Amino acid sequence: MTGKELLELIRTRRSIRAFKPDPLTEEQTEALIEAIRWAPSAGNLQSRKFYFVTNKNLQTRLARAAWEQYFISEAPLVVVACADTRIQARYGTRGVALYTIMDVAASIQNLALVAHALGLGSCWVSAFDEGAVHSLLQLPPFLRPVAIVPVGKPAEQPSPPPRVSKEEAVTFID
Amino acid sequence: MTGKELLELIRTRRSIRAFKPDPLTEEQTEALIEAIRWAPSAGNLQSRKFYFVTNKNLQTRLARAAWEQYFISEAPLVVVACADTRIQARYGTRGVALYTIMDVAASIQNLALVAHALGLGSCWVSAFDEGAVHSLLQLPPFLRPVAIVPVGKPAEQPSPPPRVSKEEAVTFID
Repeated sequence: MTGKELLELIRTRRSIRAFKPDPLTEEQTEALIEAIRWAPSAGNLQSRKFYFVTNKNLQTRLARAAWEQYFISEAPLVVVACADTRIQARYGTRGVALYTIMDVAASIQNLALVAHALGLGSCWVSAFDEGAVHSLLQLPPFLRPVAIVPVGKPAEQPSPPPRVSKEEAVTFID
Repeated sequence: MTGKELLELIRTRRSIRAFKPDPLTEEQTEALIEAIRWAPSAGNLQSRKFYFVTNKNLQTRLARAAWEQYFISEAPLVVVACADTRIQARYGTRGVALYTIMDVAASIQNLALVAHALGLGSCWVSAFDEGAVHSLLQLPPFLRPVAIVPVGKPAEQPSPPPRVSKEEAVTFID
């Protein structure tokens, strides 16, 4: 795969907020897990844990906990991405507040790209009641849910939202 | 590009800590900027800012500020990735401490993958003296450097480090 092909994939990925109900195939689910696992992490500590929720009732409660973003529970798969705050604790506050978050985020971005390459849509949702999601999944105290990512066949084709210019995005220092 | 091809790319990306001095082409630099720009962000607010440092003297100082990880300044390009803490402040503490970090991280992961697709290596370095890097780049107070990413032709071929099993990575709730 060339850089050009990957860039095309990156540019055409959209946040999808309407899904068809078709369940994912085993192969698709497997690919998402591999995307998650092979993301980089600080010190290769992989301070992250993912829940793949296909239970409709739980999905609906998660959608409610995400300030009633009910498109979440339209998706056949709802991924809850958690930071494992124990693992990077050896690096102090910076480890817990920065490394763990980035470890999870790297996995989510891989997942979003692989989903898109498979013809699936996803949406990286971080606006939710963290305590409510923690309770719903009966998470251990050291896991912090930081994103909810519905995944499924897109039922919409949104236009690309605007981006900052190259000049705003990057400053060169030579 | 198929999901299989993308997964292969994701699986073969390594953190590279030894670089050849060859500068990046304009096309390669351009591709990295596009990878950064088209990453998703909370509310599409793109609360991130990147510095592309090719100045060798400044690169060496950045390497020193990264607890003397001098492989950083071997690379022809050193990217300093910053969170813009103003932009997500409308979402309160959660916006500044979570959304901004994830916005930057999504861009960095895109950059790492596009670099790899172009035959370049990179390393996501977050262990550094944040205050020192802030001073070196004379950053405004609202920018927080959260990663230093050297990019260049790899001068090493590391073996894949171990990953947690699929069962450890993901729990299914049906």
